[in-house]
Order: sequence, then C-alpha cells, then structure tokens
Amino acid sequence: MKNESNDAQIRQLIDSWVTALRAKDIDELMSHYARDILLFDLAPPLEYRGADAYRKNWEEWLPTFRGPVGYEIRDLSITTGDDVAFSHSLNRISGVRTNGEETDVWMRATIGFRKINGKWIVTHEHFSVPFDMEPPYNASLSLKP
Amino acid sequence: MKNESNDAQIRQLIDSWVTALRAKDIDELMSHYARDILLFDLAPPLEYRGADAYRKNWEEWLPTFRGPVGYEIRDLSITTGDDVAFSHSLNRISGVRTNGEETDVWMRATIGFRKINGKWIVTHEHFSVPFDMEPPYNASLSLKP
Repeated sequence: MKNESNDAQIRQLIDSWVTALRAKDIDELMSHYARDILLFDLAPPLEYRGADAYRKNWEEWLPTFRGPVGYEIRDLSITTGDDVAFSHSLNRISGVRTNGEETDVWMRATIGFRKINGKWIVTHEHFSVPFDMEPPYNASLSLKP
Repeated sequence: MKNESNDAQIRQLIDSWVTALRAKDIDELMSHYARDILLFDLAPPLEYRGADAYRKNWEEWLPTFRGPVGYEIRDLSITTGDDVAFSHSLNRISGVRTNGEETDVWMRATIGFRKINGKWIVTHEHFSVPFDMEPPYNASLSLKP
C-alpha cells in the first residue's frame, strides 16, 4: 500500500516534469531536481554537477525549439522503496527547431529519486542514445522501440 | 547502521562485478544480474531485455580484448534504501584489442539494485557516452573526468 502510494507519487512527479518540459517552463522543470543533482545528459560534458549548472543547459536548448516540445514516455518501469527509487524508460523528443529542422529522437532515460521530508525529488538523471561501435562512431539517432 | 551495511554489500557487489569483467569471467559477471534485467548499453540496440539476451553481448565483446580488460570506477555514489538502491559513476574501460588497436574510453554508468531474499542484485544498468550535438553527431569517446 505504502509502495503503491510512492509509485503513484513518482508517476505524478514524472508527469508534471513532462508537462513542464513540453511547455518549456524552466522554473517548473527545475523544481523537480535536488540542488545537488548529478546528471548525465545526451550532449557533453560527461556530467553536470548541481541544478544550477544544468539549468543553463535548458536555457540554451529549449529556445532552439519553435513552439512547444513533443515528449513521449514509453515502457516506464519504476522500482520503489520507502525512500529510494529509480525508473527507466524510452523517451521520445520531437519538434521543429528554429532553423526549420525537424528533431525526432528516441533516447534511454534512467532517473534516481529520494524521498526527503515526505516529498520525492530527482537526485540523478541519465539520458543517452547508443552509438555505432564502428568508425566514425556515430550516435544512433534513428532507433525506434 | 542498516544502510551502512547495505552500502557495503552493494560496494562489494560492484567490486566483484569489476573483478569478473577484468578476468572476462562471463558466468561470474552474469551472476550479478537479475534474470529480467533491463539494460541500456553503449552500442545498439536501444535496450536489452533479460540476462540471456545480454549474455551474448559479453560473449561477443570480451574476446575482442587481448588479455585482461582494464576497468576503473571513479566518483562512485550509491543511494541506498532498505531494498532499493541506485548508483552512478564514471567508468573507464581500457585495453588492447585482438586487432592491435587500443581502447581507452570513459563512460557514464548508472546501476539499479533490488534486495531480494536478503541479497542485492542488479535489475537495471545504463552505460553511455554523450555525443556531439552538431552533425555528424559523433560519440564523444575522448572525454576525461
């Protein structure tokens, strides 16, 4: 029962994160993250330490989309304890960029959560695409689940 | 105290996984994984479902190294609950391949754990490198922490 409730809370947290992302609402997005979040993102660097460092990434990236951002989550699995949880899923980001190009990429997403003072918060995120193991080692941007 | 002990058990699990990887001991490697592990690896596909599917990957890949595999883990952080935990770290794999080429790559690693019947086991792994956001979208294989 307790874990069912925790599961529901984490699902709601993910839903509201997606809603904020689609709306490009950076303040709302950032409200899901612990200040000391450690983040592995699609683009370099290897890691972001802390919400302030990562906020700049959203501030640069979200405005490159014309209008709202398309975001879909598939095969979401959440493993929930009393105060630690993690999830994995396949996430699709899509939309038209300000330069007119179309983006439509499936990525892998793993999220780490902690429950602090009764509230679940994201302390770790890992987003990636795989890459071809042969030179020139291109990222595999057209894979579909 | 309980979580200290869980932390120590997970550290030991990761240590013994690394020892098995360096020694190319596939049976020992696989003993750390839940049968229904879901895995996001460096190379395509987007995901591996189940230990049997992923075992083939090790069977093909480990023999491409001449002699033992170099493996180093840096900045390991473990978040531990009573029966759910996750870790993140930067992992370096290195060695000489059978074709004479040298491999030396830092990747991001996130692992999800569950404690089942008193024993911690890996139910999720996510390994990746970031990629350049400009065409031709090459994987960033020479980043260092």
